Amino acid sequence: MNDRLQQLTSQLADQSIQAAIITNPKHVYYLSGFRSDPHERLLALIVTSDGTSKLLVPQLDRAGAEASASVDRIESHRDTDDAYAILAGMLGTSVTGTFAIEKERVTVSQFERLKSVLPQASLSGIDDALLAMRAVKSADEVARIKHAVQLIEQVLRETLPLVKPGVTELEIAADIDFRMRKVGAEGPSFDTTVLAGANSALPHGSPGNRRIAEGELLLFDMGVYADGYVSDITRTFAVGEISDELKRIYAAVLKANELGIQALKPGIPMLEADLAARRHIESCGYGELFTHRLGHGIGLDIHEYPSLHGANTDLLRPGMVVTVEPGIYVPNLGGVRIEDDVLITNDGAESLTTFPKELTIIGV
Amino acid sequence: MNDRLQQLTSQLADQSIQAAIITNPKHVYYLSGFRSDPHERLLALIVTSDGTSKLLVPQLDRAGAEASASVDRIESHRDTDDAYAILAGMLGTSVTGTFAIEKERVTVSQFERLKSVLPQASLSGIDDALLAMRAVKSADEVARIKHAVQLIEQVLRETLPLVKPGVTELEIAADIDFRMRKVGAEGPSFDTTVLAGANSALPHGSPGNRRIAEGELLLFDMGVYADGYVSDITRTFAVGEISDELKRIYAAVLKANELGIQALKPGIPMLEADLAARRHIESCGYGELFTHRLGHGIGLDIHEYPSLHGANTDLLRPGMVVTVEPGIYVPNLGGVRIEDDVLITNDGAESLTTFPKELTIIGV
Repeated sequence: MNDRLQQLTSQLADQSIQAAIITNPKHVYYLSGFRSDPHERLLALIVTSDGTSKLLVPQLDRAGAEASASVDRIESHRDTDDAYAILAGMLGTSVTGTFAIEKERVTVSQFERLKSVLPQASLSGIDDALLAMRAVKSADEVARIKHAVQLIEQVLRETLPLVKPGVTELEIAADIDFRMRKVGAEGPSFDTTVLAGANSALPHGSPGNRRIAEGELLLFDMGVYADGYVSDITRTFAVGEISDELKRIYAAVLKANELGIQALKPGIPMLEADLAARRHIESCGYGELFTHRLGHGIGLDIHEYPSLHGANTDLLRPGMVVTVEPGIYVPNLGGVRIEDDVLITNDGAESLTTFPKELTIIGV
Repeated sequence: MNDRLQQLTSQLADQSIQAAIITNPKHVYYLSGFRSDPHERLLALIVTSDGTSKLLVPQLDRAGAEASASVDRIESHRDTDDAYAILAGMLGTSVTGTFAIEKERVTVSQFERLKSVLPQASLSGIDDALLAMRAVKSADEVARIKHAVQLIEQVLRETLPLVKPGVTELEIAADIDFRMRKVGAEGPSFDTTVLAGANSALPHGSPGNRRIAEGELLLFDMGVYADGYVSDITRTFAVGEISDELKRIYAAVLKANELGIQALKPGIPMLEADLAARRHIESCGYGELFTHRLGHGIGLDIHEYPSLHGANTDLLRPGMVVTVEPGIYVPNLGGVRIEDDVLITNDGAESLTTFPKELTIIGV
């Protein structure tokens, strides 16, 4: 039994929980070493308080599970099987205790099926415990995230010389996704975002056929999966000379990014980092146009615990890796966001992102 | 109010359901025309039985929603807001009736939050009604899927000349993803799969650094998003001359694919199509190695209702679009899968896929 399963087992025993039923593929990978995407099929890892671990996988994934899962037993189900009945069988005959499930993931419908096979069990939530485990990264995990950051920075360096007025957002985005694979990443960790001019003012915009034009901003928000872990960075550039207003906005966001990172240290409430960045943007008169939180945890998922928003009183812990990504979005004009991936250390924070942040002119 | 919202409204009225609360972004797009990816943030469309529609979106998506959603009212929430409290406010003061929710999507945790803001409401499921609506495609939807099929077929045609012994699976997969964008697709509809030799025997394998070699199979499973709709096709090729055993397997799968398509017609239970293909593979002695269902619905999602498996007694209906994808996977040797996207017509079925299926030698 590996360290992570051991840690979970102790938590279950402490809380008198008979077993945890874990279905999030990322949690299953984190705990067992078996990585898969079961789509709508049932994948479940059962961990009991007395220290056994069993995995139920779709038949399709059986060979993969046998090759990589560090569990005591593997069962599989076919599309015509009642997967929940098999799950119930694996839980054993004495199913009257408390079982822990992922309330943030298990659907009402799955819950009803679980209740029907475990009518006498009481079901409690295990989400926060698993998210808290995953939020504090091991040295190996930090190294993987750092590697994913290095790969996306390499892609960005290779991409900038290709930017010229007249090229479309989509052409640049397609080229970026191609380079991600070429540099050795598994692929994008989310839809690669390249937004030109007024489009950069859409915090959730997608690249389209807009052509890059001189005098406008160009925003890149992108990351890769590498060895299962993600990176997530944003840089905004000036295509040729830009107006003084856009320069002021850039300067406000850059300072907010730096203040946000400086505020990060173990033991402080997360809201303090958000407010450190936000207050600066407010003082520059753009408070209403910073429409989202400061950042979020990254790891196996592109968005994971913790959430760095202005009302989160949870405390930062060493080993957390979070994004710091303030932005200002002026409708119909343009937006600036600058996003780094930052490790909380024992006495402060270390940015894993090294790509320069000062305003840079490209494309001319 | 558009036709789809109208249809849903009538269903709610028929079942004395006060309102439906819909959070699946694909359902929201289908019903309202507003397409978004809210990640972990709450997106909810409220449709009432008296014919009003209201949309709650993250603040980030407000401008996008205002530009495209055909609803009566739009509200938005920020990361620091209690989105469920806003949702409750939108439902109005009289919240004692029956509300319909997506039990296949709403998590136990979301359900508990809904119950806390709607303590006197009774909550029923609306999943099947929405999936049944989406399963029967309009002419416009069929045209979009057909276009997505044409784009992936163009990509496959352009890719084949690049296949040479020595090139890796990942290099080909990266090239494919690049070409998808170049031909005008939004991107892959799932992880592009290129599997060489023994890897092709892994129905859920991912492309890696294995090099394409003469005398082996090469399997492509891929599709694109275009205009919001997906394609999903598989073709398997011989790289140079292959063994008689691999040729026999290919012939068995090809025949099973054809029998599966021939079996499709409105009014028959879905299991009949699965069994038509499966019996042929069994008669060839490979029954144990066809480890998955015959196919699945496609549309806004890559896997959607219906599921063509051997125990599904639901009836096929005109307008459904399903994959037909039998396969045989011989461990450590290789696998063959041939997958078409097929429209159920008024009197039979029409394959939207036109790429040739006879065994083709490439790479030499």
